[in-house]
Amino acid sequence: MASGEPEFGDSISVETDSGTYSGIFVHQEPDFIFIKLGSGYNTGISRSRIRKVKLVQKRNVPEETTKVDGRKDGKGIAILSTGGTISSRVDYSTGGVKPSSTMDRLYSEELSRMHTVPVHYSSVSNILSENMTPELWVELARSIKKSLDREEGVVVFHGTDTMSYTSSAVAFMLREQTGTVVFTGSQRSPDRPSSDAFVNIESSIRFASIRMGEVGICMHGSLSDDDSVLLRSVRARKMHSSRRDAFRSIEFPPIGEIKGNSEPVVTSFLPAGESNRIMDKLDPDVGMLYFNPTLSGEDTERFVEGKKAVVIMGTGLGHVAERIIPSIEKITRSGVKVVMTSQCIGGIVDLNVYSTGKRLIKAGALGLGNILPEVAYVKAMFVLANYGSDEFEDMMRTNMRGEILERNLGGGFS
Amino acid sequence: MASGEPEFGDSISVETDSGTYSGIFVHQEPDFIFIKLGSGYNTGISRSRIRKVKLVQKRNVPEETTKVDGRKDGKGIAILSTGGTISSRVDYSTGGVKPSSTMDRLYSEELSRMHTVPVHYSSVSNILSENMTPELWVELARSIKKSLDREEGVVVFHGTDTMSYTSSAVAFMLREQTGTVVFTGSQRSPDRPSSDAFVNIESSIRFASIRMGEVGICMHGSLSDDDSVLLRSVRARKMHSSRRDAFRSIEFPPIGEIKGNSEPVVTSFLPAGESNRIMDKLDPDVGMLYFNPTLSGEDTERFVEGKKAVVIMGTGLGHVAERIIPSIEKITRSGVKVVMTSQCIGGIVDLNVYSTGKRLIKAGALGLGNILPEVAYVKAMFVLANYGSDEFEDMMRTNMRGEILERNLGGGFS
Repeated sequence: MASGEPEFGDSISVETDSGTYSGIFVHQEPDFIFIKLGSGYNTGISRSRIRKVKLVQKRNVPEETTKVDGRKDGKGIAILSTGGTISSRVDYSTGGVKPSSTMDRLYSEELSRMHTVPVHYSSVSNILSENMTPELWVELARSIKKSLDREEGVVVFHGTDTMSYTSSAVAFMLREQTGTVVFTGSQRSPDRPSSDAFVNIESSIRFASIRMGEVGICMHGSLSDDDSVLLRSVRARKMHSSRRDAFRSIEFPPIGEIKGNSEPVVTSFLPAGESNRIMDKLDPDVGMLYFNPTLSGEDTERFVEGKKAVVIMGTGLGHVAERIIPSIEKITRSGVKVVMTSQCIGGIVDLNVYSTGKRLIKAGALGLGNILPEVAYVKAMFVLANYGSDEFEDMMRTNMRGEILERNLGGGFS
Repeated sequence: MASGEPEFGDSISVETDSGTYSGIFVHQEPDFIFIKLGSGYNTGISRSRIRKVKLVQKRNVPEETTKVDGRKDGKGIAILSTGGTISSRVDYSTGGVKPSSTMDRLYSEELSRMHTVPVHYSSVSNILSENMTPELWVELARSIKKSLDREEGVVVFHGTDTMSYTSSAVAFMLREQTGTVVFTGSQRSPDRPSSDAFVNIESSIRFASIRMGEVGICMHGSLSDDDSVLLRSVRARKMHSSRRDAFRSIEFPPIGEIKGNSEPVVTSFLPAGESNRIMDKLDPDVGMLYFNPTLSGEDTERFVEGKKAVVIMGTGLGHVAERIIPSIEKITRSGVKVVMTSQCIGGIVDLNVYSTGKRLIKAGALGLGNILPEVAYVKAMFVLANYGSDEFEDMMRTNMRGEILERNLGGGFS
């Protein structure tokens, strides 16, 4: 390379057979150089096409650390990696994507050099998120608590598949927090030119540097790399299997936005506390059941065996077929809690409008307004483990983390 | 028309206030001319906008004219009422909403007087749609077939809760149709001033008067009463428990729109056929299971007992925890079909990207691209009842009604 090895953050220009690319150097691999273009997109340029790489400008390294609100000297951001696509790379022998802890560590270290805030990386697990369990959520909550005791804020790398479950569980367990916890991941593995990993990690670190009492999810707000959002975990849901902007905050606006290189804008966030405190118990004996026109009372009773609570995703305002209601009554009488949510995702559950809902109330089922089904499921685990059975309804109705909205603030899937 | 009546298959150009459309003449109605554009899409052009229609080239051949415009004098629109909020009224003694067959009949009669097309009302059931069953879907499909034999088109009044299940089932059962079938309902009962029932019924009649080979859902396209849409049933889903525009066409644009008093605009619809033909068998032994981080292999095996197929709503691209996969293998080996869909709702299922997906394929699970979970569930009932077990995979992969998109055409929840 003509002008020495570029460092992360340097402005470079790359001359190829088909034109010259100018941008910020991100990282390199044996066959590729990755740069961030002016458009905000990352691109990987094959070395076989490269004629010359020129250093345009050395990155600026400020002498003094910029003090963001609440930042204390010496503290930084902890990155806790649990695995997921963000920690994976393409396996060209199979064409599949498989876990690799080198990529996220690499990015984290590079970001640490670039950012004025120190970034401390550690790996707590390396699994695809469909394999996450309540036991791992508890361990993660403990690691987050310890990290918050030492650092400014925490960024958690996590697979996107169950990110809203895990981040909601952490939100309920974390009773008080001195700084922000940001979950992030990626929809394309970081070794792909089109990866969203880099932007998501960088934006997450910037959000985590702002002192808030929030557990959020930071991903793309649109298809553009210039648009990152921070969503409240208990209102967030993965609504698309592959888009970069798959996560949506359901009927509640994002709590933070970063447009391109401009400063993060955060609104209506919960305030940080003076100490970090967790209630690190969850009861895993909770199930979720999806109502459909052939679900029988017998199916329902059989499914509930061995469980202490079941969250039913009913239709509309929280309905099931009337033929099932006797089974639901049997289930609640046996001491198992039944919570009604809606498979519509959007809108509230209200068991007082139709005869079906009224019969469900009589059968002992509980409607909880507009709590999301997955969040109700995680919350039930938290409430069962930490409160008495007679407190279940009260605690489920208690708005702990903004999971129950007084009224819908956003239009649909904002 | 300047150069005589065009016939089906003629190349024509239509000059309007806002430009000239060239394409193949498809059919015409008193207020509309439909042409197939070069892009392959059909579009309807309002006669009020048309300055001139020019015959570009006479189609080749036919001595015998194909009758495309199937409207014959004396025919009208059949309204088949099944119940739901659209057939309910507020019971002021309880504050709840309860079924009443008088309201929808009243509206239908008023509409019949108002419209030039005769409207023939009949009630086929009077239930809230959470109580719909496959048996009732079959009966309804038979009634629809009979109505299509007599009338121009059919409007079905139905509760919104399970409307996408029922309308998808009818779409699969109806193998050929001479006219349009439109499902409609309301989010507020018709005796409330804020009811959406009237607009939905009127727009449904207008859509059903256009000859298409579609089974659609007509509801509000936005909160405004001036905005009705026709959604393809197998791409539609109730995405909100109470909004008037609760129904969204997932990643596929609406096939029809009515803005205020202007004429309906319909695009890219399936053509109507020459006769009405149904395959009126469904196998109800199909279940839906929602994956979540505590779902066990045992839960899965127990749930599947007595079923011939199960549609699992997995995470992301169609994943479940690896610990469950041995149970899925056991299930498929016992001859029960397992179909993977995604709880994201948006996007495709692809079992070839991650190790989890590849293991699911080996275990005998089937991924079906971007078919919606509820539609996969209904389609499995249709395929099990009408084809051999060894044809299951092929038939599930066969795009029967536009339920599997070649590519996503809309952005998210349009």
